[in-house]
Amino acid sequence: MALSPTVAAVELAAFAASIFRAVGMADADARHVAHVLVWSNLRGNDGHGVQRIPRYMELVDEGTLNPRPTMTQRLETAAAVLIDADRAPGPLSMTFAADEAVRKAGEAGIGLALVRRTTHTAAIGFYTRRVAEAGMAAIAATASILNMPYHGARVPSVSTSPLSMAVPGGGRAPIVLDMATSVVSLGRLAQLRRTGKNLMPGWALDAAGNETTDAAKAELPLPLGGPKGAGLALMAECMASILTGNPILAPALTEGGEAALHRQNSFIIAIDIARFGDIATFRDSVGRLVDVLKSLPRQMGFDEILMPGERGDRIAAARAHDGIPIPPATWTELSRVADRFHLAMPATL
Amino acid sequence: MALSPTVAAVELAAFAASIFRAVGMADADARHVAHVLVWSNLRGNDGHGVQRIPRYMELVDEGTLNPRPTMTQRLETAAAVLIDADRAPGPLSMTFAADEAVRKAGEAGIGLALVRRTTHTAAIGFYTRRVAEAGMAAIAATASILNMPYHGARVPSVSTSPLSMAVPGGGRAPIVLDMATSVVSLGRLAQLRRTGKNLMPGWALDAAGNETTDAAKAELPLPLGGPKGAGLALMAECMASILTGNPILAPALTEGGEAALHRQNSFIIAIDIARFGDIATFRDSVGRLVDVLKSLPRQMGFDEILMPGERGDRIAAARAHDGIPIPPATWTELSRVADRFHLAMPATL
Repeated sequence: MALSPTVAAVELAAFAASIFRAVGMADADARHVAHVLVWSNLRGNDGHGVQRIPRYMELVDEGTLNPRPTMTQRLETAAAVLIDADRAPGPLSMTFAADEAVRKAGEAGIGLALVRRTTHTAAIGFYTRRVAEAGMAAIAATASILNMPYHGARVPSVSTSPLSMAVPGGGRAPIVLDMATSVVSLGRLAQLRRTGKNLMPGWALDAAGNETTDAAKAELPLPLGGPKGAGLALMAECMASILTGNPILAPALTEGGEAALHRQNSFIIAIDIARFGDIATFRDSVGRLVDVLKSLPRQMGFDEILMPGERGDRIAAARAHDGIPIPPATWTELSRVADRFHLAMPATL
Repeated sequence: MALSPTVAAVELAAFAASIFRAVGMADADARHVAHVLVWSNLRGNDGHGVQRIPRYMELVDEGTLNPRPTMTQRLETAAAVLIDADRAPGPLSMTFAADEAVRKAGEAGIGLALVRRTTHTAAIGFYTRRVAEAGMAAIAATASILNMPYHGARVPSVSTSPLSMAVPGGGRAPIVLDMATSVVSLGRLAQLRRTGKNLMPGWALDAAGNETTDAAKAELPLPLGGPKGAGLALMAECMASILTGNPILAPALTEGGEAALHRQNSFIIAIDIARFGDIATFRDSVGRLVDVLKSLPRQMGFDEILMPGERGDRIAAARAHDGIPIPPATWTELSRVADRFHLAMPATL
């Protein structure tokens, strides 16, 4: 197996930004989209990192992703905004939405930003963490295209819509839960396919829509807890897509074609903790709870009890120091994109 | 096996209300608490129905549940309220909270009601459905006492905190997702114990904190999807308990005793759909999506594709007509409560 080239985060981000500038993004936008993707790489969540760049290029080429969006606020209430993202890359629209949710929460106690007509959200935890870093609690979900069967169905009919919740930590990083509504993520399923490992029952369907434990045949991830994950995905579509007048699932299932092209909608909610009590007390109580949970007696096979996001925080600390390994296949694909725009690949460590 | 006495819903509710009046609740409160419990029975969710009455009596006797609460609004922002429930029964505090969330959402687009110091919430879906029936979308969660191990722990350390989301339906009943954050609910675990069926791996721990598939030995339900369910339960504690200055888990784990007594906190969020678009269009789109999902090709072993809450809606229609079967053990326990207060048991069908 070929060794993975390793790249410093700052170099990788500069490289990614150079590509996004080349397809027409404004400099600040290009740098921010690059930052959000590399943030995922740093945390070991490579499926939402720079390996998406070739797909971003396709989305630009087919007219799905708009590198020069004019995001507009369609309406504003005392506690909410509705943003039309004009097919912006998710890192732009969702960062804007997170900041708007924080602004409205600062005014009203709770703030809601609805985002319609956006594209690939990247790691939704980036945006809820941003809210938590502003001293607020966050809840967010994204609705996307067909890639998971609804409970009982044999065809893709909902999305593995991620759900994220975050709160400020107590002396530590924020606690950020970021979960797919499938049992295993699409990225993990692809990884298991490559390694040829067996799946657990209830994880996936094959192409014919039958349950399989053979990773090589697994095509569709099943919803987490059956009706629970499917229900969460359905609610994401109702609250992000239908609520903003931009339904995804029903048109894709009945019309296909144009209607099935990549698009996403999201909502993000911020709650201003300081309006309901003392933020220092909140942080202390969260810190105390984390300390207590981490010191609990453990089940067999567990070396440690981890908080949501803690593993990613650790990988980020290591990769900030050691660099980010780029799998050879991703390196090759990125080289093709670099060639197309006559850009240099990033320096390796 | 003894036959289950069957009681008309209206009779069962009148009986339950007579008990709640006997322990000191105001007439309207007694009738409402009874209504919420019998609503669960109607829907086949008997674990949150009248079988809880003996436990409610214990909670009153030990001073945990206050039958004559003075609920106060601790603070109000443009979009949120913080309610101190004064140890009210959940059906009173959560109904009040749902209505307050709707009121604030009507003013601000989104509304949040935080509830501290309440007791047994009963079926949280009752309150999100109430919001949906007011034409709004709802998100709610409840934090409660230790009854589920955090992911990796061998002792009860978080709660099976229910999470609920609801939206108005399109010509049908609202769609109401109401899910425990455990793989299987405590009620289902108790049921499996009685029937002696085997559990799936990953469902439960025994009293010693080891995984078991033997229903007779199962004591603790494991979190849904491991870190996902545990993370959702942790977030419920942070957002409902710590945010309202009434932490449950850390005090219970470190102090026990008084600190481990039954208590709950909740949050409920309402989003006023009509502020963001046309409510009729929303309902039509939800109805269209439901129609499409229900007509999908099905996996082997599925006779039908069901929406969240649909099974309960059907059982409710049947039980409204045929009456509610009361398991003999529950009937005996209710008879003891009736004797204590010199009340008549309800007429059976």
